[in-house]
Amino acid sequence: MTERVVVIGAVAAGSKAACRFKRLRQDAEVILVDADTYISYGGCGIPYYVSGDVTDEKELRSTSFHMVRDEAFFKNDKGVEAMTGTRALSIDRQNKTVRVRKSDGRETDLSYDKLMLATGTRAKNLPISGMDLENVYSVGSLHQAMAIKELVTGGQVEKAVIIGAGFIGLEMAESLADMWEIETSVVEYCSQIMPGFVSRNLSQMAQRRMEENGVTFYLNESVEAIEGTDGRVSAVKTGSRTLEADLVISAVGIAPNGELAKEAGLEVAPGGFIVVNDRMQTSDPDIYAGGDCVQVTNLITGKPGFYPLGSIANRQGRVIGTNMAGGDACFKGAVGSFVVKLFDGALAGAGLTPERACSEGFDAVGIQVSQFDRAHFYPEKEIIFLELVVDRKTRRVLGIQGFGGESSGMYARINAVAAILQYQPTVEDVSNLELAYSPPFASAMDIVNAVGNAAENYLEGRYKPVDAEAFAECWNNRDCGKYFFLDCRAEADAKPFEEKYPDIWKSIPHDQLQARINEVPKDKTLVLVCNTGVRSFEAQINLASCGITDTLNTATGVAGMKECGIRF
Amino acid sequence: MTERVVVIGAVAAGSKAACRFKRLRQDAEVILVDADTYISYGGCGIPYYVSGDVTDEKELRSTSFHMVRDEAFFKNDKGVEAMTGTRALSIDRQNKTVRVRKSDGRETDLSYDKLMLATGTRAKNLPISGMDLENVYSVGSLHQAMAIKELVTGGQVEKAVIIGAGFIGLEMAESLADMWEIETSVVEYCSQIMPGFVSRNLSQMAQRRMEENGVTFYLNESVEAIEGTDGRVSAVKTGSRTLEADLVISAVGIAPNGELAKEAGLEVAPGGFIVVNDRMQTSDPDIYAGGDCVQVTNLITGKPGFYPLGSIANRQGRVIGTNMAGGDACFKGAVGSFVVKLFDGALAGAGLTPERACSEGFDAVGIQVSQFDRAHFYPEKEIIFLELVVDRKTRRVLGIQGFGGESSGMYARINAVAAILQYQPTVEDVSNLELAYSPPFASAMDIVNAVGNAAENYLEGRYKPVDAEAFAECWNNRDCGKYFFLDCRAEADAKPFEEKYPDIWKSIPHDQLQARINEVPKDKTLVLVCNTGVRSFEAQINLASCGITDTLNTATGVAGMKECGIRF
Repeated sequence: MTERVVVIGAVAAGSKAACRFKRLRQDAEVILVDADTYISYGGCGIPYYVSGDVTDEKELRSTSFHMVRDEAFFKNDKGVEAMTGTRALSIDRQNKTVRVRKSDGRETDLSYDKLMLATGTRAKNLPISGMDLENVYSVGSLHQAMAIKELVTGGQVEKAVIIGAGFIGLEMAESLADMWEIETSVVEYCSQIMPGFVSRNLSQMAQRRMEENGVTFYLNESVEAIEGTDGRVSAVKTGSRTLEADLVISAVGIAPNGELAKEAGLEVAPGGFIVVNDRMQTSDPDIYAGGDCVQVTNLITGKPGFYPLGSIANRQGRVIGTNMAGGDACFKGAVGSFVVKLFDGALAGAGLTPERACSEGFDAVGIQVSQFDRAHFYPEKEIIFLELVVDRKTRRVLGIQGFGGESSGMYARINAVAAILQYQPTVEDVSNLELAYSPPFASAMDIVNAVGNAAENYLEGRYKPVDAEAFAECWNNRDCGKYFFLDCRAEADAKPFEEKYPDIWKSIPHDQLQARINEVPKDKTLVLVCNTGVRSFEAQINLASCGITDTLNTATGVAGMKECGIRF
Repeated sequence: MTERVVVIGAVAAGSKAACRFKRLRQDAEVILVDADTYISYGGCGIPYYVSGDVTDEKELRSTSFHMVRDEAFFKNDKGVEAMTGTRALSIDRQNKTVRVRKSDGRETDLSYDKLMLATGTRAKNLPISGMDLENVYSVGSLHQAMAIKELVTGGQVEKAVIIGAGFIGLEMAESLADMWEIETSVVEYCSQIMPGFVSRNLSQMAQRRMEENGVTFYLNESVEAIEGTDGRVSAVKTGSRTLEADLVISAVGIAPNGELAKEAGLEVAPGGFIVVNDRMQTSDPDIYAGGDCVQVTNLITGKPGFYPLGSIANRQGRVIGTNMAGGDACFKGAVGSFVVKLFDGALAGAGLTPERACSEGFDAVGIQVSQFDRAHFYPEKEIIFLELVVDRKTRRVLGIQGFGGESSGMYARINAVAAILQYQPTVEDVSNLELAYSPPFASAMDIVNAVGNAAENYLEGRYKPVDAEAFAECWNNRDCGKYFFLDCRAEADAKPFEEKYPDIWKSIPHDQLQARINEVPKDKTLVLVCNTGVRSFEAQINLASCGITDTLNTATGVAGMKECGIRF
C-alpha cells in the first residue's frame, strides 16, 4: 500500500515539510490539511501588505515565480493534496488516523503512516471588555490583515491604537503611520518597547526613531477597557488616559495551538508548546511537530525556547520532511536571531539581553559601542550601535543586539555574531571575528571587533562605561555637585557645552589632556564625553595613569546619548 | 629605566600595536619608525581617493573625528613618538638595537626592550622594459596615488591600461572608468579575473558587470613591454596586441618586505614572509611581526597563508600590542574573507574556491544558487549569487563566494558563513544557519540556507547541476544532437525560446510535467531550465521518479546564465 503522510497546518513549517517529504518520496502520498482557505502565505509580510508596500494579498501567497500557492499549485507543482477549509478534530494514535471536518461539515478519518503537526499559534486576547467590538483586530491571519487594509485604504481610520510594543505591534504601527498617515499610538505594559529583545538603551533609540516618525508611545500603561459606540470601537482606556481610536490592533503576544497534541496524549509543555526532540519528533515517534507550536532548545541557555518565526518554521519543516522520509536530519535549536525595520531604522539581535542573561543566572553585562558601518572616510556610511552581552566570569559572549539604519550594514554585523553564538565564543573571538573588509563595506577595525575590544577592556578593568540610562541619571542630577563632565572633543564641539554649563562642563581636548592635567577636578566623579566614546576612553586610561580613577566613560558618546533622546 | 618598545612600520599593524601597547603601558616609551612621511593611512582607500569619492588625501590619514594622524597627533593624542622619514637599516639582536637613518641622513641606534616589525609589502615589478617610463605606476604608496590623481584630475589621461585583474587592478579600473570616464583596459595573465578568489562562474558575472560599465578586459594575455615616447608611456604591448595608453598601473601582486628580518637572522619563509607563532612572535621572542609582511595560518587548510588586508593588520597589531605589554593574546589565523566593490556590483568570499580546494587535496565541488536577498514579495530587493564550496567526502564546507549588488545584502551572507568557517561546519550547518529574518532583510528560507540545501541535495545525488561554463559548452554545441533544453518556466517566459529554437528547446511548465511526461525526449541529455534553478530542480526530481535520469539542472537558471554573459 502507498505510504501516506498527513500534515496538519499549511502555513510555513507544514507546507515545507509536505513538499520536502514528497520530493524525497515521490512514491508516497501527502495530504496537507488546513482549517483556513488561505495557505502557505508569508505571515511575516502582513505589515508590508497593510502598508501597501505589497500591493495584493496574493503576493504573500505566491512563489518567487508568481504562482499562487493554492490547492492546484500544491497538486500540480508539488504532488501534494492540500485540503483547505478542513479542520483537524482529533488524532487516534492507536489506529493512526486523524478525524477532520471539511468545509461542507462532513467528518472523515484520514489514515496516516507519519503525521506532522504544524498547528501554529493564536493571538492572545486581553481579558478586558470591548475586545469583540468592530474594528478591534489582532493580526493572527491573512483575513484579519485584509480587513484592516480595507479599513485603512477606505479612509475610515484617523486614529489607531496598538496594544503591545513587540515585533507585530511596532511593525503595524509603522505601516499605519508611515503609509496611511494615521495618528498612531502604542500602549505597552512594560517600561520599554521590545521588552526581552533589547536593552533599555537600544529600545530608547528605536522608540525615539519611531516618535520622530509620528508614533506616540505610552509605556508602563495597561489597557483596562476598549470602549465603543454602536458596536464599533471608539476609544482605548488605560490606567492613565483614554485614547480615541477608530482602529485597535491587539498585539500582546501569541499562544501555541497545542490542544490537538495534548488531547492525543502527546507530551506538551506548560504554556501549550509541543515537546519535540532534535529530530523534531514528538513523544510519539510517528508524529512530528514543527513551527510556532513547538519548543526547541535555546542554544545559549540550553533550556527550552520559543521562536515563532517563518524562517525557523521553514527550516524545521525541511528537517521534518527529511526525517519522515527516513532521513536523519537534526534541528539543534536556536539562538533567537531577529531583525525589525522601524521606518528608516532597524533593530536586530541574537542571544540574550543583559537583563535576560542576569535572570538566567549569568553574571552578565552589556557593552555598547557606536561606529560607522563603513570606513569613516568613505562618503556613504551610517552610524550603528551595537551592544555585546558577555558573562563577566567566563568571558563568554551571550548575545548581541544593535540599532542602525534600514540598509543591511547593521544586519550584517548581527548575523556574523549570531552565526558563531552556538559555538560559545569568548570576547576574544569577537575581537578577532573576520569580517570581509573593503572601505565601501566595513572599517579596517570593524565595529564588531570594536565591541569585542571594548568588552575585553571592560573585563580587564580598563574601561569603565556609563550607559545612556546611567548617564541620564548623572545628567539629571548635574547640579548635585557629585558629577563633572569632561569633554574630550575638539574645542569647536565642546565649547558651546562649556559655555552653557560652566560649573559642571569643561572642554579639554584629548590631545591637550596631559598638558592640562592640573585643570581636571579631583574631587568629583568625572563623566568623560566625546562624540562616540573612543577619545574619552583614551582619556580614561590617561587619567588613570595620573591616579585619577573616579571616572565614567560615556559609552556611544554624545551621538548615542542624543539618539537615546537625552537633551543637552 | 623606562621600558622601550620600537615599532618599524607605521601604516596599519605598526600604528595599532604602538597605540595599544602605550594604552596598556602608560609608563613605557614607544617609538614608531617609518621611512615614509605619510603614516597611519588607509591604504585600502586609495582607489576611492583616486576616484574622487574621497576628496582629499588627508581624509585617508585622519581619524573618524577628523584629526590628521601625523607626528603631533601620535605624540599628543597617543603618547607615541613617531619618527617619519626614518628608515630602519638593521637590527642588532644581541645588543637589542635598531640602526636607523633619519631624513637628514644621520644614522643612530635605537635600543629596544621589545621590537615589532610591520614592514609591509612592496609592489611586484614585471621584468619587462618600460616599467620606468613616466606615468607608469603601481599603487604601493599614498605618494603614487597622489601622482595618479593629479594626472587624472588634470585631464591628462584619455586611455589607461591596468595590468592585473586582482583587487587593486579592478578597484583602480573602476575608479578611472567610473568617475573620470577614462577608456580603461585591464590585461590579465590568467584566464579569469580575480584568479584564486572566486570560481570562473562568479568571475564572469563580475567581469560582465565591469564591461557594462566601460572597462575592457584582455584575459590570457601577458604584457611583454611598455612603450614610450620622450620618456613617457604611450602603449602597452601584450602577446596579442598593442594598447595605447597615457597611464599604466601595474597591479601584478605584492611581495613582503622580509629583508630586515632575514638579515637579522629571524626565521623567514620562502617568498620573504616573516614566520610568527600565534602570539605573533618571530623566532626571537622579543621581536614581534604583523601586517602584510607575515604569514599566518590558513584556518581552512591549516597551512601558512598570506592575507594582506588592513583589517587583518589592525587586529594583529592589537594582539601584538597586548603581548608586548605582557598579555597573552592570540591570532589564530584567517579564513581569507574579502569583498570588493565593482561599480554597482560586489564580489565577496571567504575560504577556498573549488579550484583551490581541489589543488589542496580536497574532493571539492562548488554549488551555486541564485535568490533575492530579501523576501520575494518585498518591493526593494536584488538577486544575489552564492557558491558554496564543499568537500564531497566529509561534507565539510570549505568556502563561500558570491556576487551581488553593492548594498550589504550579499556581504551580510558572506560574513555569516565566513564567521563559522573556522569551526569546520558541514553542509547541514549552513542549511540551518540562523540568520535574522524579517521580509525587509531576508527570505524565510534565506539564500544562505538554500545554498546549504542545494549542496545537501547534490551530495545525496538528487541534484545534478550544470554550471555556467558547462552550460555554455552544451549551448554552444546545441546542434550536435546530444542535448535537449527543457524549459520549466511559465509559457510566457519559455515560448519565445521554443519558437526560436524549435528543434532543441521545449516548453513544459513544471506544473504540467506529470501530465505531459510522454512529450519529454528520452534519448538526449536533458538540460533543465527555469529562471533561477528552483523549478527545474523539482523537474529533475520528478523526471528521475519516471526513470528519466540523464538530466542536468541549470544552476542559477536563466538569470545566472545571462549574468555570466551567455546569449540566448
